[in-house]
Formats: sequence, structure tokens, C-alpha cells
Amino acid sequence: MTYQELFTQISAKKTYLCVGLDTDIRKIPSHLLQEADPVFEFNKQIIDATADYCVSYKPNIAFYEAMGAKGWESLQKTLEYIPATHFTIADAKRGDIGNTSGLYARTFFDPTSSGLDFDSVTVAPYMGSDSVIPFLEYENKWVILLALTSNIGSSDFQRLQVEDSSLYEQVLKISQQWAGADRMMYVVGATQAPEFEKIRTIVPDHFLLVPGVGAQGGDLEEVSRFGMNSHCGLLVNASRSIIYAGNGIDFSQKARQEAFKIQQEMATYLDLYCK
Amino acid sequence: MTYQELFTQISAKKTYLCVGLDTDIRKIPSHLLQEADPVFEFNKQIIDATADYCVSYKPNIAFYEAMGAKGWESLQKTLEYIPATHFTIADAKRGDIGNTSGLYARTFFDPTSSGLDFDSVTVAPYMGSDSVIPFLEYENKWVILLALTSNIGSSDFQRLQVEDSSLYEQVLKISQQWAGADRMMYVVGATQAPEFEKIRTIVPDHFLLVPGVGAQGGDLEEVSRFGMNSHCGLLVNASRSIIYAGNGIDFSQKARQEAFKIQQEMATYLDLYCK
Repeated sequence: MTYQELFTQISAKKTYLCVGLDTDIRKIPSHLLQEADPVFEFNKQIIDATADYCVSYKPNIAFYEAMGAKGWESLQKTLEYIPATHFTIADAKRGDIGNTSGLYARTFFDPTSSGLDFDSVTVAPYMGSDSVIPFLEYENKWVILLALTSNIGSSDFQRLQVEDSSLYEQVLKISQQWAGADRMMYVVGATQAPEFEKIRTIVPDHFLLVPGVGAQGGDLEEVSRFGMNSHCGLLVNASRSIIYAGNGIDFSQKARQEAFKIQQEMATYLDLYCK
Repeated sequence: MTYQELFTQISAKKTYLCVGLDTDIRKIPSHLLQEADPVFEFNKQIIDATADYCVSYKPNIAFYEAMGAKGWESLQKTLEYIPATHFTIADAKRGDIGNTSGLYARTFFDPTSSGLDFDSVTVAPYMGSDSVIPFLEYENKWVILLALTSNIGSSDFQRLQVEDSSLYEQVLKISQQWAGADRMMYVVGATQAPEFEKIRTIVPDHFLLVPGVGAQGGDLEEVSRFGMNSHCGLLVNASRSIIYAGNGIDFSQKARQEAFKIQQEMATYLDLYCK
């Protein structure tokens, strides 16, 4: 999916919601456990219920890997079920030396090898250029690079002062040599709202993938006010607050209501701040 | 495996070699492709051929993931085949917010969930404390944290000056608050030999996992001279130079010869520098 196609979806549906599929078999409604593939069944119902109100899905790879080969099969079925209208993100936070990153790229972008064909993958920047570039060798695929994450530990290293700015700002600056806003996005946590203005001076055009709204406490209005650009430029993720909104037979209804609520709020912010 | 048990193995076998199982189905000898699980068959023969000369095996997770669910099965069988005398490393370079890192820990350390039971996992430090600590909640399991890697891109961020030292030195310093030398190791690339003396002033007791000897050009003598401590303190990895030493019917013989050659060199360095 291209930058323009993504913006077209956002404009048409008036939402920049990404639904995080952090599907933990220990947390899904118990009536699903009798299904052949409970994780896929859960995801399928969540996707059916929320697709109208989001533009993206983000399976969190840890949750599938934790189940071994079986989890990998659930992931593949889930990815195939997501409509082509939705931007897909493998939230994997990979990054290794060049030849290994090449294999991770094959994992998420080459269906003839792994069965998976994501639009994008999240990548950790610590190992530098040659750990990121192999992902950019696949046409029309995106890298979403960690910049300033939503967790407490983000201050341990990401905010260390390096010359006249912090490490995460260096990541934003240096990585722009590897790809432009048409192939690269950045992860910036919703809990970091005060930083968004500064971030927009460094990467005015890029999409930012913003986790941390919902369970982690980030503020959607602030993120939108400080983070939005003329092409929206935001994919705001909510995972647990949507997918675990209910825990009974009607869990997908509850998820739909929660996604709808966020979409309504987003429609307002698009009118206000997307200019 | 404990620190002392690992040192006992090293002393008894006079080797600190780790064999990297970067098994790419596109590179293994063609006669194996008729096997039901060519990747496992390759690994099995490599393990049989090299176990006498190494103390550790390090499957590179990317290579298994790239084959989807099938690859995950090959990984599980490989891990089960590695003798209990050998320290096992999941080279995965994971790291995410706390609850997700908890799932990655479950992946590599909880066989009731994933089928895998590694001794250790490599972790990227960029997201800080709460991305690392969940891995330390499993008793007797190790975190191997990226410090200064062997690739060109390591200079992009790891060597940036932060206050009076570089970022990777900050990683070494700050992470010591999370665990001691009995539960944490660090990745330091063999291509960074001149840095080993400085690194040993910061982490005198820790084991260092050292990739980059062989295909990447690091020098084993230098690494050993500057990096070794009184408990050896080194696991030096070689992957491609061993596992792809041959490409015919006799590939495992060639791998054995290559591992033997390295072990002989290591025996000399243990005599010289392990004090």
C-alpha cells in the first residue's frame, strides 16, 4: 500500500485507528477454546467487528511465536483474512546484521518463503543502517523504525543526550538517509505527547505509528493536535482496550463499540487538525 | 546452565566455540533436499560433527522464521537434539514493552507454551529496562544483551558520544543494575577487538558472546588476548565458516575439521590468557 492509498483510506473512513492483534490464548473468551484454532477464530471475529472503523491491523508477533509452530499458522491465517483495504503491520521489532535482517525481511515480506505478506514491519534501530536497509529492498514494503517508545524504559537510552539532541532524535535524523516518507514510518509512543511538536520539525511528512493509547494511558487528543500533518500522518494503535473490551459471547460486539468510539473521536480530530 | 557449569565445560573441552546454526535452506547441500525436514537433517549432522569441539549452539531465529511454521518445527527439533552439555542461545535480538517481552520470554523459555527451552536469548537494549527484565524472570535463564555489534552499522548509534562515553558503554553500565554476571552476557563483535580492553574495565566478570570471527573477518587471537578473563568469559561464535565449510556429501566432515581447527587455536589461547 502506498502513502497516498493509505491517506485515501483514512480520508474515506475518517479514522486513523490501527487495531493491535495482541492475541493471548490465555486471555481470550473461554467459549472459543473449543475451536480448532481459537486464536484465529478470535482474530477473525475481531476483524469482522472492527474493519469499518480502522485502517490498519497490527499483529504483535510475540503473541503468535509464544505458541510455536501452531501460533505461526494462526498468524498466517489471520494475515490472509485481513481485507486488502487495511494496512498490515508485523509488530516484530527485528534488527540484526545485514544477512540476518535479509532473512527477517524474507519472513515478513516473501510469502513464497514464509507464507506471510505484510505491508510493513517494525524494526529496532540499535544496530544501524545495514540492519534496516535489507527490509527496504522489497518494493512497496515499509519499515517502521522505533524512535521514542511508549514504555518507562524508553528514558534509559532513547532520551540520552547525544551532542545537542537526544538519541531518538538522532535516529530520526540519520535514518532519513535510508528512505523517505513513502517507505519509512516511525514509532512514537502516545505517552510522549509533549515531544510530538519537536518530532514534527524533524519528520514533518512521515507517518508515525503511535501505540500507547488505551491500556498504557496516552491521550488521543494531544497526540492528534501535536502529531497530525496535512496527510494525517498518524496511525494510532489500540490493542488491549479494544480486543479485550469484552470477555463473553459478545466480545466482538464490545470490541466494535470501542473501535467505533475511537473512530468518532478521530473523525473530529481529522476535521480540526488535518490541514 | 550456570556460570560455573559453563566454565567447567570450557575447561574440560578446551574450547569456547559457539557454533551458529544460521541454516538457510537455499544454501544447504542439495542431497539433503529430499529429506522430510532438510534443515533439521543438516543441523543434526552439523551437531554430531562439531559437538566435541564447541560448548554452545546458537540457532539464528531469522533463518527458521523465514520458513514459517515449518521452520519453527525444524527449530524445535534442532533444540531438542542439542546435548544438555551445550549452552543454547536463541539469537533473536528481541525487545519490546514489558508485557510483550514477557511473551517473547515465554517463546524461548517456556516449553509448555512454545515447545522451546533455550538457556538464553539475545535482546536489543534500545527500549530499556522494562523490555529486558521480563526475560530475567525465568530462573536459570540468561539474557545476552547487544552492546557493540560486529556490523558496519554499529557505528551509526552504538558509538555516539553520550556524556563522557559512548552509547554502548552506557548500555554496559546501566544494564548491570538489572542482573549480574550470573544471568547476563553481552554481545561484542569480534571486529571490535581494540575495544575489548575498555569493555573489560566495565564488565570484568561477564561472559561476552563474540560473533564476527570467520566470514565477518574478526581476529580470534586479538579477541582472546584482550577479552579473556579468569573464567574465560568468552563465547566466540562462528556460523557460516563452519556450517558451510563444505557443500557436498562430506559437508559435516568439513565442518568438523573447521571446528577442530578453531578448537585447537582456542586451547592455546586458554593456556595463554585465561588467568
